[in-house]
Amino acid sequence: MTVGVHRATTPGGPVVPTPAAHQVLRPLGHDAVTVRPTGWLAGWRERALDATLSHVLQRVEEGEARGNLARLLGDGEPVRGMPFTDSDVYKTLEAFAWAAGSLDPDDKRLDRARELVALLARVQEADGYLNSWVQGHGGERWSDPQAGHELYTAGHLFQAAVAAQRTGALPGLMEIAVRFADLLLTRFADPSSPYVDGHPEVETALVELFRATGETSYLDLARHQIERRGHGWLGEGRFGSAYFLDAVPVRRADRATGHAVRQLYLLSGALDVAVETHDQELLDAVARVWTDLQVSKTYVTGAHGSRHRDESIGDAYELPPDRAYAETCAAIAAFHLGWRLLLATGEGRYADAMETLLHNAIAAAMSTDGTSFFYSNPLQVRTGHDGGHEDAPSRRLPWFSCACCPPNLARLLSGVQDYLVTATEHGIQIHHPTPATVDAVVAGAPVELTVRTGYPHDGRIVVEVEHDSPQPWELSLRIPGWCGRYGLTVDGVPTPAAADRGYVRLHRDWAGRHEVTLTLDMPVRLLHPHPRVDAVRGCVAVTRGPLVYALEEVDLPPGVVLEDVRLLAVLGVRATADGVPAPVVDVRVARELPPGDALYLTTPDTGTGEPFDVPLIPYHLWANRDPGAMRVWIPGPAEGAPR
Amino acid sequence: MTVGVHRATTPGGPVVPTPAAHQVLRPLGHDAVTVRPTGWLAGWRERALDATLSHVLQRVEEGEARGNLARLLGDGEPVRGMPFTDSDVYKTLEAFAWAAGSLDPDDKRLDRARELVALLARVQEADGYLNSWVQGHGGERWSDPQAGHELYTAGHLFQAAVAAQRTGALPGLMEIAVRFADLLLTRFADPSSPYVDGHPEVETALVELFRATGETSYLDLARHQIERRGHGWLGEGRFGSAYFLDAVPVRRADRATGHAVRQLYLLSGALDVAVETHDQELLDAVARVWTDLQVSKTYVTGAHGSRHRDESIGDAYELPPDRAYAETCAAIAAFHLGWRLLLATGEGRYADAMETLLHNAIAAAMSTDGTSFFYSNPLQVRTGHDGGHEDAPSRRLPWFSCACCPPNLARLLSGVQDYLVTATEHGIQIHHPTPATVDAVVAGAPVELTVRTGYPHDGRIVVEVEHDSPQPWELSLRIPGWCGRYGLTVDGVPTPAAADRGYVRLHRDWAGRHEVTLTLDMPVRLLHPHPRVDAVRGCVAVTRGPLVYALEEVDLPPGVVLEDVRLLAVLGVRATADGVPAPVVDVRVARELPPGDALYLTTPDTGTGEPFDVPLIPYHLWANRDPGAMRVWIPGPAEGAPR
Repeated sequence: MTVGVHRATTPGGPVVPTPAAHQVLRPLGHDAVTVRPTGWLAGWRERALDATLSHVLQRVEEGEARGNLARLLGDGEPVRGMPFTDSDVYKTLEAFAWAAGSLDPDDKRLDRARELVALLARVQEADGYLNSWVQGHGGERWSDPQAGHELYTAGHLFQAAVAAQRTGALPGLMEIAVRFADLLLTRFADPSSPYVDGHPEVETALVELFRATGETSYLDLARHQIERRGHGWLGEGRFGSAYFLDAVPVRRADRATGHAVRQLYLLSGALDVAVETHDQELLDAVARVWTDLQVSKTYVTGAHGSRHRDESIGDAYELPPDRAYAETCAAIAAFHLGWRLLLATGEGRYADAMETLLHNAIAAAMSTDGTSFFYSNPLQVRTGHDGGHEDAPSRRLPWFSCACCPPNLARLLSGVQDYLVTATEHGIQIHHPTPATVDAVVAGAPVELTVRTGYPHDGRIVVEVEHDSPQPWELSLRIPGWCGRYGLTVDGVPTPAAADRGYVRLHRDWAGRHEVTLTLDMPVRLLHPHPRVDAVRGCVAVTRGPLVYALEEVDLPPGVVLEDVRLLAVLGVRATADGVPAPVVDVRVARELPPGDALYLTTPDTGTGEPFDVPLIPYHLWANRDPGAMRVWIPGPAEGAPR
Repeated sequence: MTVGVHRATTPGGPVVPTPAAHQVLRPLGHDAVTVRPTGWLAGWRERALDATLSHVLQRVEEGEARGNLARLLGDGEPVRGMPFTDSDVYKTLEAFAWAAGSLDPDDKRLDRARELVALLARVQEADGYLNSWVQGHGGERWSDPQAGHELYTAGHLFQAAVAAQRTGALPGLMEIAVRFADLLLTRFADPSSPYVDGHPEVETALVELFRATGETSYLDLARHQIERRGHGWLGEGRFGSAYFLDAVPVRRADRATGHAVRQLYLLSGALDVAVETHDQELLDAVARVWTDLQVSKTYVTGAHGSRHRDESIGDAYELPPDRAYAETCAAIAAFHLGWRLLLATGEGRYADAMETLLHNAIAAAMSTDGTSFFYSNPLQVRTGHDGGHEDAPSRRLPWFSCACCPPNLARLLSGVQDYLVTATEHGIQIHHPTPATVDAVVAGAPVELTVRTGYPHDGRIVVEVEHDSPQPWELSLRIPGWCGRYGLTVDGVPTPAAADRGYVRLHRDWAGRHEVTLTLDMPVRLLHPHPRVDAVRGCVAVTRGPLVYALEEVDLPPGVVLEDVRLLAVLGVRATADGVPAPVVDVRVARELPPGDALYLTTPDTGTGEPFDVPLIPYHLWANRDPGAMRVWIPGPAEGAPR
């Protein structure tokens, strides 16, 4: 049986595989999902569209990002900052493109974004080349593949242009992108060229540009870039060729390695190429490396990458909570990759990973006022922490000398509604529940889904289905991996359904108006680390639903040092605490009395003080009150972690 | 009562405080202690004088270090490598100076060292300036205080020159140093100058140059350098002013912070200034920061510094074993600082720290063949470790792009016998027992001490005393902090003596020939971390005497993954195992069966396999057999670490 599921009216959000692509799921159109202001996600997106987008635009306009482009018009000043400051402009433009439909058409910021497009058009060279760093230095093009980021920066231009085309915002940007992309074809399309960029990104961007334009040469170039990488052509550099992901060909890789963001962007590009070229071997390689990440190199917040020195992933099970690098851009990249794997396979585990990332690693990177950010997202900050210079500060910062993360957050949040729901030939899948309406066409007739829920703080998810046709189709709802028990009713009638690859699937005639209620049991769960994760041995992480919780110094009684606190018991969940706009988990703890000054002891004669109760807050809300120590992994009493 | 203790015939080794300095202990002359070839330390020193010194000299001659100096004579090549390559030459020359008395006078390597001195004389500018990096670039002098290392490099020249003068080796080097030092006086002696170098080192070197030449202006300049630092003049740089130790004045500091080597070199300089200027406040500051290090920022191997990104010390209790940076040069710097604090105070805890460093952190940095080295000294290497590029490799490397550590090891080992024994007005103190003879003059008559011991592998220490005068004096022997029980006899007669600030003290008439036997109980000890040291919670470190032990993958049965091994019991000590030239500690372990792939678990249902026995080897011997995983801190069974 085949029922038709059509695209919504707009051509889609980020990632729109061609009809010929090997995909299990299809994204809906960019205007298909409208998040309603009551939800947690909508509130966050609203903050991003308002405060964050204004903040990022201003920083881009006033800093090196616009400055380096403007200097090409002859103010005589040398270009400054990082070689990839143009990418901050591109990511900001992409954010405006995804946001445009939600903004007032008279929003003055849209004019300012259009002025940035006009500036790009003016500084683009006659042959299509565009890179303020190389143009500003009068340097040779493509002369620094290790660190020049020329293809990386071009990739962000292409992604912004694709967003502009799909949303109809920012006219002119696609023309700039195509001119540059066509120049790349003349320079790099020859399969015998060994050139690859030190920082992957252009691969996924070229596939999306192919999808937006139909120009198969872009797909071919992306495929060549994937195939060329992994033969050591980039050399050793400061950190070795694995850092560039140039030590092993992508299709032979079996473990996640190197610079975290580069690894994850590369996997997204490889996946995009694989589904468009029906390359199962390449798709298997991507899934294999993703699995390696998940089983040995993922923080409980979903983040990746333990090493500060080279922003790299680190060894298997090397997951220090204090020196977690856990770069914001790596979390965003992993979210992007998860979406692609979900579309390609339909397997719920990829949506589970996206959920963990979104609610923890990514959400923590932005302050509650939307204007300060973490670049690195530690899971522990000690009393008296020395954060170093922009490395792992105890507070979010308004900007960074390497400013990749804030505009990356802006572009993700502007289009975040596009990652919630998909369709197949047979139905609709809700991956990430949040209050929203979903418009689609199924079985030749319009469907409207209305989702009502307090998720992620409450496990009850109500989906109202309105549909005119008696042609049956399948509504799928994700059962998150963290959920051990759930209940399902349709129009109030209990409807037992076993989860299949992460989803309960309701195949039936939906004609008329029906109400599906999924109730996910959402108890507080204590997570223990795999015994090979040395850094948090004897500790537990407190979670509830998709949220990881943290203990902050500000919630401790005066004089208690966070490092001495031991978790005794979970007391329960409470609506909020002072300054915490989310449920808190109350726990009973005790202060372990340190055994004196000696660092190493033959008999650790510690004592335990009187128990007292403290609230834990969602990890993503940490560092929004008084600055201080924080920890996600909390030790149990010395005689063993609580079970 | 006062008895005379005179210097031996040579003017001393590294660190010779003036008679007016505030010191409790006095070093002996450089020729006063002769280590006998049977000892562990003598074997190591012999390897250093033979293989290491040859290797380092060759690398210096053939690499950038000599190359950059030679290029100043007109081969037209640009200078290469790091701005401080001259310091590799200086440290190598210092090593030859301390070694000279132990080498065959016809050793051809001495000629080659003299040729390096001649080269320095040729390239030194007329006004005394000497720095191949600045001269080779035609750059402005003193224009890059953050990163230029000009005073740092000068400091190593001065230290080499002092060694050359004290040992009579390498004539001409002191003249070069004095010419440069006098130029520094004209440039920096004005107390109103704010200039300090990003890398401390010149401070301690200037005090030693003052001691060697009697020129008080050098001491004044050292004092100014100490006082100027800590006011933020160096700016923020990439890592903030704390990285340069420029955020807090030395005399107000209360915690160890910033770049580990810089912190430790600075403290040595401050201590040297303090004792020569009778500045108790400054001495107290140094001791305060040292204590902060010991109680919260010291690895069980004695090493300091957890952070790879900026080679910095890290937060209190931030002591990850896997990502320990534990730079070799920081361990050497801490050894130097410990010696200065020991001399200034006479307190055994400083000698304890030196002992831990020497037998573990420093000894591990050199291979058993003396020609490969660790720059970073982790306490754990996981299965399949990704060491990155020169960062934390699983094997020692022959050289480094930043080659500070190998010549630093060479200069330490060449003069290591000078750190073993001291004198006071009242007697002689043996801090570090090893087979040796000690020549001194006490109470107007020569004393010869002959030390016989299997230390550090055996706790029995026999000291034969030969003396001609009936004037009583005090022989002190250190009781290490790790030692809970000891026995003492004099001429076979049990002589109970309580330890006083780390030493048993025998005050008596030593006329004739007497034999003192100190027997230190040396059981295997399990050390537990302070509960705030999160990274090794639930683990124990196995130690015996001053030696920390490690478990290496090569000693495990095939198929057992080191990360799964749990320590059950200590079985005992055995002479050696295959390829291990030291006693091993046999332990019983079990393999913990991992609970599957999930990284985070609600019920960690691990199982424990059949126990089996494996040997642990001294940590300093790791990575001398087949490469593989290693760990110092070994987890106990999941229900709690063994007590």
